[in-house]
Amino acid sequence: MTNSTQLLGISNAIVDVLAHVDSDFLDMIGAPLGSMTLIDSDQAEDIYSKMGPATEMSGGSVANTIAGFSNLGGSGAYIGKVRDDQLGAIFNHDMTSLGVDIRLEPASGGAATARSHVLISEGGQRTMQTYLGACLGLSLADITESTVGNPKALLLEGYVWDIAEGPALAKKAAEIARTNGTAVALSLSDSYCVERHRDSFEDFVRNDANIVVADEDEVHALLGTDSITAAIEQLRNYDVLFAVTRSEKGSVIIHGEETFEQAADKVDEVVDTTGAGDAYAAGFMYGWANDRPLSDCARYGTYCATQVIQQLGARIEKGLLDDI
Amino acid sequence: MTNSTQLLGISNAIVDVLAHVDSDFLDMIGAPLGSMTLIDSDQAEDIYSKMGPATEMSGGSVANTIAGFSNLGGSGAYIGKVRDDQLGAIFNHDMTSLGVDIRLEPASGGAATARSHVLISEGGQRTMQTYLGACLGLSLADITESTVGNPKALLLEGYVWDIAEGPALAKKAAEIARTNGTAVALSLSDSYCVERHRDSFEDFVRNDANIVVADEDEVHALLGTDSITAAIEQLRNYDVLFAVTRSEKGSVIIHGEETFEQAADKVDEVVDTTGAGDAYAAGFMYGWANDRPLSDCARYGTYCATQVIQQLGARIEKGLLDDI
Repeated sequence: MTNSTQLLGISNAIVDVLAHVDSDFLDMIGAPLGSMTLIDSDQAEDIYSKMGPATEMSGGSVANTIAGFSNLGGSGAYIGKVRDDQLGAIFNHDMTSLGVDIRLEPASGGAATARSHVLISEGGQRTMQTYLGACLGLSLADITESTVGNPKALLLEGYVWDIAEGPALAKKAAEIARTNGTAVALSLSDSYCVERHRDSFEDFVRNDANIVVADEDEVHALLGTDSITAAIEQLRNYDVLFAVTRSEKGSVIIHGEETFEQAADKVDEVVDTTGAGDAYAAGFMYGWANDRPLSDCARYGTYCATQVIQQLGARIEKGLLDDI
Repeated sequence: MTNSTQLLGISNAIVDVLAHVDSDFLDMIGAPLGSMTLIDSDQAEDIYSKMGPATEMSGGSVANTIAGFSNLGGSGAYIGKVRDDQLGAIFNHDMTSLGVDIRLEPASGGAATARSHVLISEGGQRTMQTYLGACLGLSLADITESTVGNPKALLLEGYVWDIAEGPALAKKAAEIARTNGTAVALSLSDSYCVERHRDSFEDFVRNDANIVVADEDEVHALLGTDSITAAIEQLRNYDVLFAVTRSEKGSVIIHGEETFEQAADKVDEVVDTTGAGDAYAAGFMYGWANDRPLSDCARYGTYCATQVIQQLGARIEKGLLDDI
């Protein structure tokens, strides 16, 4: 436990297995373009055996945010479950090498480290088939005063709700946070994830979260709204700081009656939108953890997301915000 | 054993671990820019712990050639040693997914699958620190009439001489090849490797090889020459088909008194020269295996190398030669 930790991530620890595919491949495995589907180990083996040669790199939504936060110069820590296998060692290495404090030991038995088969179509769209493996073993027992410590904020991802003890361990983390004066942030992951766990998310946002980072679709899935105006009106009723990202429309920060709009930066060419939301969260939380005004937080988030969509891969460059 | 195999590769089966580094990093670990150094498992652990976040992908010199050969539409097979660990599974998956027939079972014990820490400097130059691990277990017992079969050609890499039974198993493979009418090709790997094993290479080239693919530096290291004219004069004395690559100067094919020069293709921007020689070998051997005239073989090799240097990563696109 490091007392000076600014941001602790709690999320699914995943190694991405990336390969280019044609549209026939998605038809063959029955995956809608752009979807994220959870698969079991048999399905994972089947898909992998059909996939072409791949590239492996550490991934995961909030894990990417914590990696980015550390690369910006923030003090990050991480709770997520890998196995003591080679992919687990790769995941932990990649996080540790960025200065992230890994709080859990790898599991010495059970399922293998999680893999997300990231199928990249022509045009760059990504379809994910995710085998959660060892992540499913993240449990209430892993969330303790010692592993959580007292960071300035902790950041959960919606995907944690996809694991058996996820909702309960999120609640437990929030309780520890409340006792220690740690802020609780939630990233809503994706709109399908929000639909899977809508009531539980609504409860968590209302009663436990201090900060929510989400894109517009996720907010609509949470609230049942279909216009940004209607969504903003409802978000004002929560005692929560919302950062809502809107792709080329920029982002909007809502906190009760306060609203701040941040325009998107001009981009010559969008190479790969993967990780844009996670990068935004990294920049936003970096500003927040360093007591910057909300306008700066939004600007940092935008700046990080803008960098990430102009490259292949989801991770933020070291020291990106040093000059802004 | 597949009777229709055109090209069987015998080489070190390696997973590349790629990361960007600054020049201080190379100084710190004492690695000359652009070098390839063999390291043991302690050194591998030490370097990996100091490296930043990495990307993993299957690599290895002749393994890349066989992967490329298969992607061009050739029938490829492979002998190389991995362990039954996750990196070994990744290596075998990536080869198999391209249609390469893997001839050996993974080792069920001993050292882990080989990793090459590929340190990419600003400007794209690569410095490699290679832990051979399971490759070192490739032995005479793995080279049998059943594992070699009777391909049209087999292709060895110079790096095989870095493993204990390497020179002996290369000889054994060449003997099996001679019995079956299989041509024996050798890729000289790198000039330092040639210097490490010069006498053994000279003997193998003179007495066992039918085809040698090498760059100019490797040829000079083998012959002790320092001009291409002097080298070509000496190469005419061997009963061997030589394909000598010369970067932007193209390549020259020498077979006794025959000579054929192939100009390099114009390239707008060189992104990454890694794998250019392996890609050339794939194109050249694809032409050779399909009974094309030597001028076509050289043209195919050049075409493949030209594609590979204009992208990040060493592997040839599927069907690259379909339209030429």
